[in-house]
Amino acid sequence: MAKSDFEYVKQFEREMPALPNVWLVIRLDGRGFHKFTDDHDFAKPNDLRALRLADACAQHVMKQHPDVCISYGQSDEYSFVLRPECNLFQRRPMKLATTFAALFASSYTFYWDRYMNSIEEPTHDPDDFDHTKPVAIRSQDDTKYVPLQYPPAFDGRVVEYPDVRTLRDYLSWRQADCHINNLYNTVFWTLVQDGGLSPQAAEQDLCGTLSGDKNEILFSKFGINYNNLEPRYRKGSILIQGTREVIVPERDRSGNDTGRTKTRTKPVIQVLHTDLIREDFWREHPTILGD
Amino acid sequence: MAKSDFEYVKQFEREMPALPNVWLVIRLDGRGFHKFTDDHDFAKPNDLRALRLADACAQHVMKQHPDVCISYGQSDEYSFVLRPECNLFQRRPMKLATTFAALFASSYTFYWDRYMNSIEEPTHDPDDFDHTKPVAIRSQDDTKYVPLQYPPAFDGRVVEYPDVRTLRDYLSWRQADCHINNLYNTVFWTLVQDGGLSPQAAEQDLCGTLSGDKNEILFSKFGINYNNLEPRYRKGSILIQGTREVIVPERDRSGNDTGRTKTRTKPVIQVLHTDLIREDFWREHPTILGD
Amino acid sequence: MAKSDFEYVKQFEREMPALPNVWLVIRLDGRGFHKFTDDHDFAKPNDLRALRLADACAQHVMKQHPDVCISYGQSDEYSFVLRPECNLFQRRPMKLATTFAALFASSYTFYWDRYMNSIEEPTHDPDDFDHTKPVAIRSQDDTKYVPLQYPPAFDGRVVEYPDVRTLRDYLSWRQADCHINNLYNTVFWTLVQDGGLSPQAAEQDLCGTLSGDKNEILFSKFGINYNNLEPRYRKGSILIQGTREVIVPERDRSGNDTGRTKTRTKPVIQVLHTDLIREDFWREHPTILGD
Amino acid sequence: MAKSDFEYVKQFEREMPALPNVWLVIRLDGRGFHKFTDDHDFAKPNDLRALRLADACAQHVMKQHPDVCISYGQSDEYSFVLRPECNLFQRRPMKLATTFAALFASSYTFYWDRYMNSIEEPTHDPDDFDHTKPVAIRSQDDTKYVPLQYPPAFDGRVVEYPDVRTLRDYLSWRQADCHINNLYNTVFWTLVQDGGLSPQAAEQDLCGTLSGDKNEILFSKFGINYNNLEPRYRKGSILIQGTREVIVPERDRSGNDTGRTKTRTKPVIQVLHTDLIREDFWREHPTILGD
Ligand SMILES: Nc1nc2c(ncn2[C@H]2C[C@H](O)[C@@H](COP(=O)(O)OP(=O)(O)OP(=O)(O)O)O2)c(=O)[nH]1
Ligand SMILES: Nc1nc2c(ncn2[C@H]2C[C@H](O)[C@@H](COP(=O)(O)OP(=O)(O)OP(=O)(O)O)O2)c(=O)[nH]1
Ligand SMILES: Nc1nc2c(ncn2[C@H]2C[C@H](O)[C@@H](COP(=O)(O)OP(=O)(O)OP(=O)(O)O)O2)c(=O)[nH]1
Ligand SMILES: Nc1nc2c(ncn2[C@H]2C[C@H](O)[C@@H](COP(=O)(O)OP(=O)(O)OP(=O)(O)O)O2)c(=O)[nH]1
Ligand SMILES: O=P(O)(O)OP(=O)(O)OP(=O)(O)O
Ligand SMILES: O=P(O)(O)OP(=O)(O)OP(=O)(O)O
Ligand SMILES: O=P(O)(O)OP(=O)(O)OP(=O)(O)O
Ligand SMILES: O=P(O)(O)OP(=O)(O)OP(=O)(O)O
Ligand SMILES: [Mg+2]
Ligand SMILES: [Mg+2]
Ligand SMILES: [Mg+2]
Ligand SMILES: [Mg+2]
Ligand SMILES: [Mg+2]
Ligand SMILES: [Mg+2]
Ligand SMILES: [Mg+2]
Ligand SMILES: [Mg+2]
Ligand SMILES: [Mg+2]
Ligand SMILES: [Mg+2]
Ligand SMILES: [Mg+2]
Ligand SMILES: [Mg+2]
Repeated sequence: MAKSDFEYVKQFEREMPALPNVWLVIRLDGRGFHKFTDDHDFAKPNDLRALRLADACAQHVMKQHPDVCISYGQSDEYSFVLRPECNLFQRRPMKLATTFAALFASSYTFYWDRYMNSIEEPTHDPDDFDHTKPVAIRSQDDTKYVPLQYPPAFDGRVVEYPDVRTLRDYLSWRQADCHINNLYNTVFWTLVQDGGLSPQAAEQDLCGTLSGDKNEILFSKFGINYNNLEPRYRKGSILIQGTREVIVPERDRSGNDTGRTKTRTKPVIQVLHTDLIREDFWREHPTILGD
Repeated sequence: MAKSDFEYVKQFEREMPALPNVWLVIRLDGRGFHKFTDDHDFAKPNDLRALRLADACAQHVMKQHPDVCISYGQSDEYSFVLRPECNLFQRRPMKLATTFAALFASSYTFYWDRYMNSIEEPTHDPDDFDHTKPVAIRSQDDTKYVPLQYPPAFDGRVVEYPDVRTLRDYLSWRQADCHINNLYNTVFWTLVQDGGLSPQAAEQDLCGTLSGDKNEILFSKFGINYNNLEPRYRKGSILIQGTREVIVPERDRSGNDTGRTKTRTKPVIQVLHTDLIREDFWREHPTILGD
Repeated sequence: MAKSDFEYVKQFEREMPALPNVWLVIRLDGRGFHKFTDDHDFAKPNDLRALRLADACAQHVMKQHPDVCISYGQSDEYSFVLRPECNLFQRRPMKLATTFAALFASSYTFYWDRYMNSIEEPTHDPDDFDHTKPVAIRSQDDTKYVPLQYPPAFDGRVVEYPDVRTLRDYLSWRQADCHINNLYNTVFWTLVQDGGLSPQAAEQDLCGTLSGDKNEILFSKFGINYNNLEPRYRKGSILIQGTREVIVPERDRSGNDTGRTKTRTKPVIQVLHTDLIREDFWREHPTILGD
Repeated sequence: MAKSDFEYVKQFEREMPALPNVWLVIRLDGRGFHKFTDDHDFAKPNDLRALRLADACAQHVMKQHPDVCISYGQSDEYSFVLRPECNLFQRRPMKLATTFAALFASSYTFYWDRYMNSIEEPTHDPDDFDHTKPVAIRSQDDTKYVPLQYPPAFDGRVVEYPDVRTLRDYLSWRQADCHINNLYNTVFWTLVQDGGLSPQAAEQDLCGTLSGDKNEILFSKFGINYNNLEPRYRKGSILIQGTREVIVPERDRSGNDTGRTKTRTKPVIQVLHTDLIREDFWREHPTILGD
């Protein structure tokens, strides 16, 4: 199409593609979610509905971009992993990060009511987020109704990891972060909500404590065994490309229903809340990072 | 807070800040809007509701980030300009582009119904998008109801312009692009919708024509004077920081309503659909780029 | 020419060109010149021969690359300025910096004897470094003979400056650095060499002193007026593209010497040791940065 | 030391460090060596003296920077490899490339006479370039004396390779390039020098020929078996860190010569002209890239 004299300004655009043959991680993180979670009355320390919402958004991103081989989410963040040979957006970091951040943010808004305001109680069951299945949404008069008050934002970045070792250490880093924060937050809010401490007193009690001390407080004072708490909260969410057998109506050559059924293998995105730091996880799922 | 052995992976994060003292432009563009506009039955060549929605999103971005001194939007794109001295996100291009893209995309989703499904007919009047003012939304049974079918995505980029000349040429480039595309699309769809031509025939008719030819076709065949068409379509949308006098209730020292009123200057974001290529615009609005 | 299966590794090469339309500065700096100047018995605080050698190298660089509009040198460093419209090496920072660093370093080695071991005493006269004019070099037995003991290295960088203001401030920064260091070094070595102080004592004497104090010590204790010292030492070297009238033999159409002479304008590189911080310099040399 | 108001310009300096944990290659290449080799009458297609000079320069670079684990040189280029864990110059690409380019260029100038103008005939023997051993240099009147006419320049770049596979493919790429060019040049110059063809005729003869054809021409027309030609020309130069047993005078505790000798292991840089494309090379030298 026709051009103008001003086109020269296009030359000021510069971008370096990512290095070929390295793992790419796109990490998104909620902007000012300290305030956002307050404004929307998120349960403390973990809001099940909100975590499932984030998982649903990540799943949507992975469906749009099947190049993502594994994702990991916790708190207000989500990381998406692309293989070394992946050529999505010609590996342009800006394109990748902005598109993923935008898609995640609009999904968060789009699916808000389905997850935050569903009448059905949220469950911990991993599911495959079938968004086409209609759900009943609370009425706006319902006292439990939490309207989305303003559009959320996420920042994004692309990080290059040269080998499986560093890539796995990246994921371990995020899961260790989840563990550390969740243990702290769990004890903190238990002390406040069940122990009747003021936030200041709880903070002071925890100051300088190690993991073992925190487990001990939970167990001795509140009879809570941290390791029995919800895996989702302790481990975050791991999303991987998987398959599932589904039963579908059989059709004949003309496309007419035969009245019989057959099983078909459907791609689904699996949601796991297991430990990915230990070797076992990768042995059990060799195809995620393997060839 | 405590750390893990995996923290070393943080060192793989690298980002170069933008050059100091240059103008920064963040341009967002809808991902695959050819399909998106089809899927959502956008009016051709211009959908007034959708353009007003995009303007509203840009306005929301500018309210969140008052550092933006001027924005320009057309088609499925929006550009935001930051001054040379602006230090938003320490001028980190990734942060700027991802946050803006995410915020725009979630706003687009958030405000979809208000603009696409408002019962009131959309107007061309520039307004200040008072999103707190409730509007009546069509019922889902209404044949005119256009549900958002999936979350939209936008890509983003940051471009550095060293001086006012190149910055203005950038904006002129986008407005010239708006003009060129809109003239083409207007003639094309007039030939198809009013002239009864097939899209192929219309395309062939327009092949090789210059601006003058297109104006001539519109005028001689359809009695349309292109220059009289909606400025919004021909010029796109310019958003600038402005002020407006508003009448507010007067309060005494104790905060009680006195029963009288007073005028107050309120910051508003002005929406213009004028020519910014010519000198006049910048003479009339010297503060946008000036000190 | 034919290719191999290994060519794919070329794709790992990445480079971002410099921003268009900004000033580029290439600054080179001697690697470990603290040791290098010691190893080669440089006069303290300023070695006239070595400074003239550096100027000669810079001049050589400017002759090879006439795109350089001004250079500035002091101590073990040299800066070369390219105009915003310059397209040398397509503005690739790596190419620019490595080529300039390599050329300067090999010139330093190449011209070492001519400047460090010339029999003629070095002068402060700016000259145009006519390297084709043979000079007499000291014999290796001469006690004043300073052989180059090992090849010197220089690091290099490219910095982008968006306007004349920042570019001039860059040059002012380097000249101010020259002044500050030279004043300090001059007093320090005067205290040591003429005042009989130990280096430690001299350092202590100077600790916390301001410019005025240092001028005062020089004047009251040693009768030295700092402002009368060599401009070259106080101001560093400014190299600009200039011209000079030269008298050349006249030739007739067949190229035969007519026996008469004529004047011709020859491009030369001028060497100045003046203040470039003040406005005057730029008023007197409007073409350096002007159009 | 004191600062000036102009220091803010330092903020315009930007550099991204190389990715951690990847192999770094610094490749240098002679600037305009087509002309340089002409100007200095290099033997065609290979000038033994010049190739040994380049090897000597690379060796000097490796002695200064023992972090370099292997270098490879051919024609007017040299590549230096740094291990993934190397932290030289904090892995700053600009520092690495400029310093290496400068050091190589000044070494080339510094060692020019020793290699290009040595009275002793150059040999193909790999040696350890003991530059402290004096050599007899030709007199300037000697018709074989080749003075260095101007300082040479080299460009440089840093390339990141994420694993041993790509790093080895990089080196294979350069050696394959050496082979392809050398085979071509050898046949070309044999046709011209021994076959009496004009350069144009030789070029035409070779147009479209494959490797096998070129070998055949050499053998059938000139009785030359390409594979028997000098390995240095066919394979280029590989430099690796090695050791050598040397016999040194023994000294007693007081440092006095005892009159006896002893053997000591001395680090040397080995120069090889072997095939590095095949597995064998890496099996024979497991420590180069291994841990
Ligand atoms: N109550 C509650 N808060 C949560 C939950 N998940 C995340 N948050 C909150 C806790 C933190 O304040 C915040 C995440 O921390 P960040 O370090 O990302 O900080 P924030 O997003 O405020 O700032 P940023 O813009 O990322 O620098 O989100 C949740 O399930 N429940
Ligand atoms: N019908 C209709 N279409 C519009 C309107 N505004 C924009 N569009 C369409 C026209 C173009 O197909 C598309 C914008 O063109 P782009 O070059 O951005 O392409 P697209 O977004 O499809 O691909 P991209 O992901 O940006 O490479 O959006 C509108 O008001 N009405
Ligand atoms: N005696 C003497 N020394 C000089 C002269 N010009 C420069 N130098 C010395 C003074 C400093 O020690 C050194 C320049 O300082 P730098 O900050 O560049 O340090 P240096 O090159 O040692 O380290 P670098 O590799 O640049 O980080 O060169 C001179 O004319 N005479
Ligand atoms: N006669 C002769 N020429 C050589 C020898 N080694 C290298 N050369 C020449 C052949 C090529 O013309 C040149 C190297 O080719 P390049 O592709 O590096 O081109 P050149 O350096 O001219 O341009 P550049 O600045 O690198 O783009 O050096 C040699 O041993 N003998
Ligand atoms: O945001 P923080 O402080 O948790 O840490 P970060 O995400 O590494 O920092 P930034 O958001 O500034 O990149
Ligand atoms: O997307 P296009 O083709 O209109 O042009 P562009 O936006 O400059 O290209 P890209 O989206 O690939 O940066
Ligand atoms: O070398 P310095 O310490 O004078 O300062 P610099 O040159 O800015 O630092 P670097 O050489 O590390 O870029
Ligand atoms: O210089 P060439 O053409 O052999 O190829 P290159 O070195 O990859 O190109 P450049 O010197 O422009 O980086
Ligand atoms: Mg952050
Ligand atoms: Mg956050
Ligand atoms: Mg977070
Ligand atoms: Mg695009
Ligand atoms: Mg688009
Ligand atoms: Mg577009
Ligand atoms: Mg330095
Ligand atoms: Mg130095
Ligand atoms: Mg210095
Ligand atoms: Mg090259
Ligand atoms: Mg070359
Ligand atoms: Mg070459």
